[in-house]
Amino acid sequence: MDEELLLFTVLDMAGTFAFAISGAVAARQKNLDLFGIIAIAYMVACGGGILRDVCIGAIPPAGLADWRYLTLAVIAAALAMVAYPLLQRLDHPVQMFDALGLSFFAVFGAHKALLFGHNAQVAIVLGIVSAVGGGAMRDVLLNRTPLILRKEIYASAALVAAVVQVSGERTSLPIQWVPWVGIVLCFGLRYLAMRYHWNLPRFSRSER
Amino acid sequence: MDEELLLFTVLDMAGTFAFAISGAVAARQKNLDLFGIIAIAYMVACGGGILRDVCIGAIPPAGLADWRYLTLAVIAAALAMVAYPLLQRLDHPVQMFDALGLSFFAVFGAHKALLFGHNAQVAIVLGIVSAVGGGAMRDVLLNRTPLILRKEIYASAALVAAVVQVSGERTSLPIQWVPWVGIVLCFGLRYLAMRYHWNLPRFSRSER
Amino acid sequence: MDEELLLFTVLDMAGTFAFAISGAVAARQKNLDLFGIIAIAYMVACGGGILRDVCIGAIPPAGLADWRYLTLAVIAAALAMVAYPLLQRLDHPVQMFDALGLSFFAVFGAHKALLFGHNAQVAIVLGIVSAVGGGAMRDVLLNRTPLILRKEIYASAALVAAVVQVSGERTSLPIQWVPWVGIVLCFGLRYLAMRYHWNLPRFSRSER
Repeated sequence: MDEELLLFTVLDMAGTFAFAISGAVAARQKNLDLFGIIAIAYMVACGGGILRDVCIGAIPPAGLADWRYLTLAVIAAALAMVAYPLLQRLDHPVQMFDALGLSFFAVFGAHKALLFGHNAQVAIVLGIVSAVGGGAMRDVLLNRTPLILRKEIYASAALVAAVVQVSGERTSLPIQWVPWVGIVLCFGLRYLAMRYHWNLPRFSRSER
Repeated sequence: MDEELLLFTVLDMAGTFAFAISGAVAARQKNLDLFGIIAIAYMVACGGGILRDVCIGAIPPAGLADWRYLTLAVIAAALAMVAYPLLQRLDHPVQMFDALGLSFFAVFGAHKALLFGHNAQVAIVLGIVSAVGGGAMRDVLLNRTPLILRKEIYASAALVAAVVQVSGERTSLPIQWVPWVGIVLCFGLRYLAMRYHWNLPRFSRSER
Repeated sequence: MDEELLLFTVLDMAGTFAFAISGAVAARQKNLDLFGIIAIAYMVACGGGILRDVCIGAIPPAGLADWRYLTLAVIAAALAMVAYPLLQRLDHPVQMFDALGLSFFAVFGAHKALLFGHNAQVAIVLGIVSAVGGGAMRDVLLNRTPLILRKEIYASAALVAAVVQVSGERTSLPIQWVPWVGIVLCFGLRYLAMRYHWNLPRFSRSER
């Protein structure tokens, strides 16, 4: 049981860290000042989780009350600043760390909703909300094109991870492996979609 | 009593359906993929109600926990895709279905807040929030001009419906007729405002 | 004790009024109609506080349930319309009243979170959220450049006020003076930053 708690804590912290990096780099690209970079990093890292916690009745939201989230966001912001030239050499650093956060949070968000006694639909939807919420706030506040408007597979990758997690917890599959299946599927799908511009079927523009 | 419950369930579902159509058409116009269309349809349909439920303490929000909302959103998205050429022949299909959702949700939102024991002001404000919340999220995420920035009467139509509903429930008017008065007034006002470009008084730009 | 309650009520109302003025002027500049001006004034005045109340479990949020907030927003909107030519003569009237609201709400938000039994971090973060939340909604809905994207010190001024308030309440400093120290520091910092274009350190754009 303690091992399970440890596993999900690690997932939550890893997602927080990845999203904080993506937020810090996006804020840095917009030339925000130091405090703005930390604020955006913290908001991307905790925004989706706070929406989730408010909806499942986890008051106060963990992202506000637990010092580890804010600390992680500050460290990630500092690291992102120091390693900025390095990060810039990645293709789309914001989207790459966003994809990592997306995978960890889709799984952790679904797990936390189930833990609070909610049904499978709540868990799946809030898994997706945890995963895309912080990034949506980043894009709206920083005047970036929301990732959901881009052509590649995005929220549907989070759906896959959340469905895997909820199905796994509802059946007797080994709890220590289930999250990793969801994470690998979600990140793999998102990474390949970015790299090869995979899209879901879409309707021809000509009908308009 | 059961009849009353049925009436308000019908209003809630009708509003959900109308908003889901408006969201699906708006997402289709932005050329989003299938999942994006369903996601936006669901968000427009349930976004305002989730804000309302979080504020009145209805946890978990009905839009997340009740399978009927998500199912309606999926059906509406599918219908909107199949009937897209037909819907495009309407003047402003997004705004037309938005006006229907606006009317149903202004009434239902006010009713639900009263049902949870809140005062008349909470009911009126949350009636408006239910009615305009999902549409505002749609416009912000899809980079559309928020309807509140357009010139025609919009949120004030929702105000009328919410006030009618709250006044009706606070007096001894027959509960089965009151909602329809609010809905007809709200939709009529919004429809005429769109058609004839009715505005509320506004101050001349020249003063600036 | 009653004196303390009175003090914080005054701070809350003063912040509400200042934010309502800033919202009404911004809405007026965008040429919204009368109802739109009142709606935006109310949203700027109460939006941040509602986010705070939802996160600390104060249901229903005071901004919805208490008639004084809505009344203040209506009065502020009316005043802002009547005195619009006068207000326009100020440098940046929206930002000036926003700075006042920022100072009052950073202090009051932190105080209210402590009052509900939350820890210092929750109080500081929610002080900042109360202070910047309504303004962020205003800027996003009205398509203005979010203040956090501007170059001058903004949210960090709210941080200073929230930290002063939380430190003051956690030590034995006289409760009737602490808020004013935070308010003067926050408003002074923001005012000077606007006037002399003070920035926090930022990284050179050339690295990009």
